[in-house]
Amino acid sequence: MTNYKQILQKIEQEIKPFSNEGMVSTSIPELALISPFKFGIHLVDTARVDSSIGDSNEKFSIQSISKVLSLSCAFKFLGENTWSRVGVEPSGNPFNSLVQLEYEKGKPRNPFVNAGAIVIADILVSNLKSPKSDFLNFVRNLANCDTINFNEEVALSEKKVGYRNAALANLLKSFGNIENDVDEVLDFYFHQCSIEMTCKELAHSFYFFANGGYTLAQNHRILTESQIKRLNALMQTCGFYDESGEFAYKVGLPGKSGIGGGIIAIHPQKYCVATWSPKLNEKGNSVMGMKALELLTTETQMSIF
Amino acid sequence: MTNYKQILQKIEQEIKPFSNEGMVSTSIPELALISPFKFGIHLVDTARVDSSIGDSNEKFSIQSISKVLSLSCAFKFLGENTWSRVGVEPSGNPFNSLVQLEYEKGKPRNPFVNAGAIVIADILVSNLKSPKSDFLNFVRNLANCDTINFNEEVALSEKKVGYRNAALANLLKSFGNIENDVDEVLDFYFHQCSIEMTCKELAHSFYFFANGGYTLAQNHRILTESQIKRLNALMQTCGFYDESGEFAYKVGLPGKSGIGGGIIAIHPQKYCVATWSPKLNEKGNSVMGMKALELLTTETQMSIF
Amino acid sequence: MTNYKQILQKIEQEIKPFSNEGMVSTSIPELALISPFKFGIHLVDTARVDSSIGDSNEKFSIQSISKVLSLSCAFKFLGENTWSRVGVEPSGNPFNSLVQLEYEKGKPRNPFVNAGAIVIADILVSNLKSPKSDFLNFVRNLANCDTINFNEEVALSEKKVGYRNAALANLLKSFGNIENDVDEVLDFYFHQCSIEMTCKELAHSFYFFANGGYTLAQNHRILTESQIKRLNALMQTCGFYDESGEFAYKVGLPGKSGIGGGIIAIHPQKYCVATWSPKLNEKGNSVMGMKALELLTTETQMSIF
Amino acid sequence: MTNYKQILQKIEQEIKPFSNEGMVSTSIPELALISPFKFGIHLVDTARVDSSIGDSNEKFSIQSISKVLSLSCAFKFLGENTWSRVGVEPSGNPFNSLVQLEYEKGKPRNPFVNAGAIVIADILVSNLKSPKSDFLNFVRNLANCDTINFNEEVALSEKKVGYRNAALANLLKSFGNIENDVDEVLDFYFHQCSIEMTCKELAHSFYFFANGGYTLAQNHRILTESQIKRLNALMQTCGFYDESGEFAYKVGLPGKSGIGGGIIAIHPQKYCVATWSPKLNEKGNSVMGMKALELLTTETQMSIF
Repeated sequence: MTNYKQILQKIEQEIKPFSNEGMVSTSIPELALISPFKFGIHLVDTARVDSSIGDSNEKFSIQSISKVLSLSCAFKFLGENTWSRVGVEPSGNPFNSLVQLEYEKGKPRNPFVNAGAIVIADILVSNLKSPKSDFLNFVRNLANCDTINFNEEVALSEKKVGYRNAALANLLKSFGNIENDVDEVLDFYFHQCSIEMTCKELAHSFYFFANGGYTLAQNHRILTESQIKRLNALMQTCGFYDESGEFAYKVGLPGKSGIGGGIIAIHPQKYCVATWSPKLNEKGNSVMGMKALELLTTETQMSIF
Repeated sequence: MTNYKQILQKIEQEIKPFSNEGMVSTSIPELALISPFKFGIHLVDTARVDSSIGDSNEKFSIQSISKVLSLSCAFKFLGENTWSRVGVEPSGNPFNSLVQLEYEKGKPRNPFVNAGAIVIADILVSNLKSPKSDFLNFVRNLANCDTINFNEEVALSEKKVGYRNAALANLLKSFGNIENDVDEVLDFYFHQCSIEMTCKELAHSFYFFANGGYTLAQNHRILTESQIKRLNALMQTCGFYDESGEFAYKVGLPGKSGIGGGIIAIHPQKYCVATWSPKLNEKGNSVMGMKALELLTTETQMSIF
Repeated sequence: MTNYKQILQKIEQEIKPFSNEGMVSTSIPELALISPFKFGIHLVDTARVDSSIGDSNEKFSIQSISKVLSLSCAFKFLGENTWSRVGVEPSGNPFNSLVQLEYEKGKPRNPFVNAGAIVIADILVSNLKSPKSDFLNFVRNLANCDTINFNEEVALSEKKVGYRNAALANLLKSFGNIENDVDEVLDFYFHQCSIEMTCKELAHSFYFFANGGYTLAQNHRILTESQIKRLNALMQTCGFYDESGEFAYKVGLPGKSGIGGGIIAIHPQKYCVATWSPKLNEKGNSVMGMKALELLTTETQMSIF
Repeated sequence: MTNYKQILQKIEQEIKPFSNEGMVSTSIPELALISPFKFGIHLVDTARVDSSIGDSNEKFSIQSISKVLSLSCAFKFLGENTWSRVGVEPSGNPFNSLVQLEYEKGKPRNPFVNAGAIVIADILVSNLKSPKSDFLNFVRNLANCDTINFNEEVALSEKKVGYRNAALANLLKSFGNIENDVDEVLDFYFHQCSIEMTCKELAHSFYFFANGGYTLAQNHRILTESQIKRLNALMQTCGFYDESGEFAYKVGLPGKSGIGGGIIAIHPQKYCVATWSPKLNEKGNSVMGMKALELLTTETQMSIF
């Protein structure tokens, strides 16, 4: 059996030279306050063994990684009908472009561009009784952890600068692809992105993507195998903004990044791994996180290609 | 001296075959209720003689024609600095496209596309003490008429379907080209567009564009001659959505249209004329209004070309 | 009667401070060799009086100004059918953008953007027996001058760097809006743009736009009055690349500029004026030419606005 | 060991209901002549066992599948420098859009959109002594088969309607991203696309992608393992026009399709499979080919997700 703990420790050494590269995101004021040198990894394999290094037990803002969780929740409600409102193809444009949305008549290319995630948020506002608390419970159950919470200051900070997201939401509404009140949908969306988790909690909550749809702690079925395959394929092709092709080559795993510096990656049937390091490259992905995952698949010789 | 009354009467006869062409706009629900067969013209020449035919004393929603009045008011405050926030070139795209705004980094091409008019509204919200009532007074003074008012139902109706304008306003804000609260600016903008005037009131209020900057009733100077030339040039090149070139050829006068079916046109130093007929062509301009103005410049041999 | 000669002499003095502004175009290698400080004006009024200053008898490359002449020639053949292949609205984009052409399915917005001029060139290749020599004769007759010629070196120089025009022509062909062989059409187009004329010859050749369609020397009717109005309106709204609105304000006359530094402007029923000065502003229009025309309409108080 | 022959026979039965779906491409006149009901599969696994069904020994036009072979050949010459001229990210736009190319200043998003493949063709024209015959030999060696040839009629047919590709090539040239003569590059490109192969030859020629870079017949090293990983990742994210995300989900393998109805797919370290059926879906991919590959990964439980 692979000794992941040993591999992670090796990575911890090899990755040090990269600690000065990249910049903490300043797009959300509250996030810019984070210490730039944080670095942690948590990996849980399908033998349910946990391995971790560094700041893996410190909470951070998962930001866009939450888009996979909200999509999983919406997918439970709508199944394949989800794709009538949002596509499944890569975008080929900066992640928040209104241009594409206008040319494609209000149907976002995929659920991981901001416009697509706002449509998914609208689906949850329509289908959950108490959208914010119900969604939080959904995430807590996935991770089997009750301390997971929204960060209200981050949500507020994002709202205060979120005019481009408001533009997207209003444009979606003008095309009839938002059912609820725009402000309510945006409030849900900003909260969803503000969720804070540790690397360990994140790896545990995404475990069902590596485990055929079943959660780690209680073996609950969240999605069918076919649905898992769909979402893994989506993460593979669209998970890393305008660097999905590069990530597919360097890491070769489905995954999703966030501007808080987190990355989740899944090796189906093998493991689920979460990394965190706040300094981002110019494409918006964590420098050390990407490098660590590249080393991981090289060391384990487990790229899918 | 030209007998405009006689010419208008001749036009009234010649234009009848066109009364069945076009469609009343349905983009704002409240406006769709209007009787489609209304038709009126009011012309006031620089000898201060009034001539009119048809429903020229009936109030209608001036809509986008108000953009010239709000620009005139903002221009009084900011002068040439206005052009640092909005351009003076034709747009070459449908009038409410977000695409162009994104490519040009939040600076609208001109003050008559919706995005540009929203920036102008923001300037007025910043510079007027009581923006809505102060602007209303500005228009009342131009027309020398106290019965000019907003139509609250039309403003509300436009707000209810105004998601694309909300998208524009938020996108402008994300580029830093809106100073005030987005909702406040939109509220002002929807009210401004809801102003109702008769052809006569409209022609009187635009009289200063034909008269070197001085108003009809009280000979107040509103703008300098150079400023009038600037706004007349803007109306000439950008006043008719995506039909400005066609209008320049057929009519050959600066002017501005609105989806309420109104058109204002100016022959500098000669006259100012307002037409109203609610049925629009596919470009959003009044069919009978455009035809009437074409006949007018043909009859008077007074195209500027 | 206006003493244009006197006015031009005054302009010659006032314009000197602007001689250091702008840059000679380097987009066509052969044109970059021109002396940057050349400056000439020739005006001919409808009393057939010639007035000129400076280098008004020196030949220069008329470049895009030729687009008005080729359009006039095509318009004689096709009349209003011309507009089924090319529009009459301003473009609102850099003058050679493929983007707009693709979105509008191969119909250029107007005959003065490069794509539109290439379609007009195709019409001439289809309708003229010996396209290049027949078109040259058409221009010679307009100007009543047999020394007007193509500059083969400039045509070749433009061909060698004309890949963007080749891209436009092929895209037009893919949409079915070019009838002839792409290379033949481009050869015609590059030659057309390479025509050399003096300010005097240029002013004389455009005289029919100021004179209701009749030429200067022989009073031949080239176009009807309605057709002249159409082309004047087009020059007004589309003649100055992305500076048509600015030109309308500052000068207030229909006209057309070229990157060789020439500008033609028409005051219908009054005069036709050609200027030449090679240094261009960042929008591609001659700095001193625009300033001279601005002073001219100010001095004569003859802006159309 | 998996009995692929048995699985292919099962697929042959299950796939019959789909034989009436889709349309043969008419974009290249010569290709429209093909019999629409052809269907064949050839799979070669890394134990070097061949399995096939249907018309697997009939030659067809590989079209865009050739883009992977030309890229492999260019990659041998330029290595990582290839990516300075063409990107590695999905395009998110129809495969031949000029718009994207203009916005991204002449650098195609990836080597599988037409613009990218034309840049790759330019690299080969620069680096091969006799580009067409040298490239043909490269392909023949990969497949260990001397009967592989261009189809001159198909190449000519494509050239006759290839104005959009000519537009792309000229636009690339205008941005400085084509070194050679445009016509020579296009001639190479149209020939490359016209190559005809059987499913068996195709599967054999792509075998090195499943085999760590080594060819089937002679175990020649074509590319390094890291390079194979790069190209497999590219096929995964960009190989199926605007249906790459859908293919990743349904099939879960890297691959490439062509409008001749062929598809190649690779399961790294396991097998390489070629399918052929000329009827395409509206995205341009073979209906029965995609379905067959979906059934294959379902039957073998070998999706990478």
